[in-house]
Amino acid sequence: MMTELLRRDPQLITAGVDLFADAAQTQAARVTRVDWAPPMAGTTEDLDAVLADERRVEANALAVQRMLSVRAMVVDVVPAADALGLGPKDLLHAGPPIDWERASGPMRGALMGAALFENLVTDPEQVADLVRRGEITLDPCHHHNAVGPMAGVISPSMWVFVIEDPASGHRTYCSLNEGLGKVLRYGAYSAEVITRLRWMSAVLGPVLQAAIRANGPIDVTAILAQMVQMGDEAHNRNRAGTLMLLRELMPAVIESGFPSADLAEAARFVAGNDHFFLNLAMPGCKLALDAARDIPGSTMVVAMARNGTDFGIQVSGTGNQWFTGPAQVPDGLFLGDYGPEDVNPDIGDSAITETAGLGGFAMAAAPAIVRLVGGTVADALANTRRMYEITLAEHTMFSVPVLDFRGAPVGIDVSLVVRTGVLPQINTGMAGKVAGTGQVGAGLVTPPADIFPAALRELAARTRGQGT
Amino acid sequence: MMTELLRRDPQLITAGVDLFADAAQTQAARVTRVDWAPPMAGTTEDLDAVLADERRVEANALAVQRMLSVRAMVVDVVPAADALGLGPKDLLHAGPPIDWERASGPMRGALMGAALFENLVTDPEQVADLVRRGEITLDPCHHHNAVGPMAGVISPSMWVFVIEDPASGHRTYCSLNEGLGKVLRYGAYSAEVITRLRWMSAVLGPVLQAAIRANGPIDVTAILAQMVQMGDEAHNRNRAGTLMLLRELMPAVIESGFPSADLAEAARFVAGNDHFFLNLAMPGCKLALDAARDIPGSTMVVAMARNGTDFGIQVSGTGNQWFTGPAQVPDGLFLGDYGPEDVNPDIGDSAITETAGLGGFAMAAAPAIVRLVGGTVADALANTRRMYEITLAEHTMFSVPVLDFRGAPVGIDVSLVVRTGVLPQINTGMAGKVAGTGQVGAGLVTPPADIFPAALRELAARTRGQGT
Repeated sequence: MMTELLRRDPQLITAGVDLFADAAQTQAARVTRVDWAPPMAGTTEDLDAVLADERRVEANALAVQRMLSVRAMVVDVVPAADALGLGPKDLLHAGPPIDWERASGPMRGALMGAALFENLVTDPEQVADLVRRGEITLDPCHHHNAVGPMAGVISPSMWVFVIEDPASGHRTYCSLNEGLGKVLRYGAYSAEVITRLRWMSAVLGPVLQAAIRANGPIDVTAILAQMVQMGDEAHNRNRAGTLMLLRELMPAVIESGFPSADLAEAARFVAGNDHFFLNLAMPGCKLALDAARDIPGSTMVVAMARNGTDFGIQVSGTGNQWFTGPAQVPDGLFLGDYGPEDVNPDIGDSAITETAGLGGFAMAAAPAIVRLVGGTVADALANTRRMYEITLAEHTMFSVPVLDFRGAPVGIDVSLVVRTGVLPQINTGMAGKVAGTGQVGAGLVTPPADIFPAALRELAARTRGQGT
Repeated sequence: MMTELLRRDPQLITAGVDLFADAAQTQAARVTRVDWAPPMAGTTEDLDAVLADERRVEANALAVQRMLSVRAMVVDVVPAADALGLGPKDLLHAGPPIDWERASGPMRGALMGAALFENLVTDPEQVADLVRRGEITLDPCHHHNAVGPMAGVISPSMWVFVIEDPASGHRTYCSLNEGLGKVLRYGAYSAEVITRLRWMSAVLGPVLQAAIRANGPIDVTAILAQMVQMGDEAHNRNRAGTLMLLRELMPAVIESGFPSADLAEAARFVAGNDHFFLNLAMPGCKLALDAARDIPGSTMVVAMARNGTDFGIQVSGTGNQWFTGPAQVPDGLFLGDYGPEDVNPDIGDSAITETAGLGGFAMAAAPAIVRLVGGTVADALANTRRMYEITLAEHTMFSVPVLDFRGAPVGIDVSLVVRTGVLPQINTGMAGKVAGTGQVGAGLVTPPADIFPAALRELAARTRGQGT
């Protein structure tokens, strides 16, 4: 038997380190490499504890079920002061909590712009002191049921979309998207930025409010489902989504009674910005994930968010605790003459789309995205396929046509990330690291690996605590 | 040597009939089947003559170059009487010429509806006599630089899009799309159909005219190029195209000065019909192909069109001559309780989209289309890949993301169709065969094979004539 085995050509299946596979292959052996890696270092005990938690399977099933049951409807557009209860000097920002000292260039730039917009200062250089002294307060969007792309700064006079799940009445919020170029969310705060923000509050917000109130709620979840049939992944491609929103709103906009010059300007503004729908996709995703929060024993990630300095995640089974590590620098394609040295580390609440099965997780549905973020179409398909390794479910509404309508991978499981070493794939815009620069490109990035073992440690501690 | 050959496992490569491959495979031999078929029967001499034509390569290169150079701009919307010089009793229809006796149910239904709409009759049953006596005249759309989907009936009071290539000034025309359900182009002629047509002429046409004139020309070719990045193949999916048209037009619609109730109704009508852009895609495709007409020696197909009875093609090197054969019955998915026995043979000028590299040729760009026309995503990709075998070029503007942005296969070569036996793949709506029914489904169809050898015969005859 052994002789027979030696007589035949060996067929090797290898896993883990490549040393043996490489050596065998140089001897012309047929080698099949299996993509396997050991769990992340030092996680064995925590993994054992969490995987042994009797609540886990059911808790995760409940988290998935709650997330997939949410229907996100945009029901209103109102000033942030009213919706979020912000005082005149309260500013919200993307990502986990941060102070001025540790804030990155684009975050500082956006805070300066918001303070100018709110007439809290006349000189942007005054902002640092006011923030340090606590006269201007900072708080994460996520702590107010809100999300914001890039710097994600929301100030009281900005208008926000109000998203509601009719079944639960739970609401989330997001600012209106400013378009590309010199815009606040990328850290620009020049006069054109402030002028645009004033027009958005004076004209765009009220027009959208009138249209949405007259039209009735618009189904963001249904538009997201259509988008992935139309080449959008709802993070860096929101082209079809923006068009569908325009289609829904236009009849009511026409009949809103505002001066036709204002209506035409509002229509041109939305029509000229393929990213407009991002600010509905994000709170739509947050609404779904919020429904999955606070389930004891669940290892599902319910938020990924970056403030330009730290990358943070929140996990269903660990409440509102953030697990943070240094935000990474995205790798991708650059605008104009910008290069890698100009890029700020990863920033924005927009990774909520990946957390909900879109963005980098749905790249296979949006092959044209590689023209923006780099890589090949094969990479885009591989990214989506790889995300199935770390997710709990396939989305029941977001289906990927080219994968034979398989549901997008959704529900990131901390224990799967730790066991496989596969990190969530995020595609993102890149902000210039100097305050005031604006966008410098778009690309791909992952979270810092260490935050997943950290989250696992807390899950394990809570499991043990619950067990005793 | 021979002994050595016999000692090893045989590896067989087979082509043509499957008998040998099947026999070898049952004996566990490894067989690679090559997709090869002999040329169509009886075409050897004609193929020899056409392939030996010294003008051919250059003529086809010129045809491709001219086709790909066209920029289709929609410049106006006007009544067909003005644009096409139609008298009050002149009706145009899809496909090659046809008379009443041979006309199919949906064609007759559409002609009856058009006569009602034009107040030529009060009873649809009067139409047959009037057409037979020549008091109502029939002529193909294609003979008037026009195209129409399905029955394709254009009557003088209908409004048409005017498409122009700014470089040449050449123009093509198409009616406005009525939407789905009971509509004239599918052979329905009930009161709701006529009422809708009257509203389209009274309100929609004038609103679109005002908007396009105020906005300036809209680039149909650029929208088509975007559509194939967004899951449309521009024949049975025109969803992104319709949305992009709406986006372009809305600001000018808002400022057109019409009563806002009319504007809102027009916006709702277009917004409610994902096929609205089809009637711009078609004349856009025809404009490109018309530029490739009448090049002596060119074997490129410049039109494929069906009247519900006959399928006809026109070829660059053979002028306006039609090569016709029996239209086939599409195979696909049915609406409601309809089944195969309800389907009329293939009908409409819309196969101009396939002729221009879209529709069935670009299915790989629109995997979600299989939910409408049937088959799998793998079939959709295979259809596009197969069309490269019978086309002269890859489109320079219509690129297929999932095929790594390869240009769509374009420029059907009669000689390649005859040599390979591969027929152009068309996806299409299915009309009920009884006049008045409307749409019964959507599916896939090919032309009758014999029209390609017939076209080749004429090309060969002209080659020989030119040679002597």
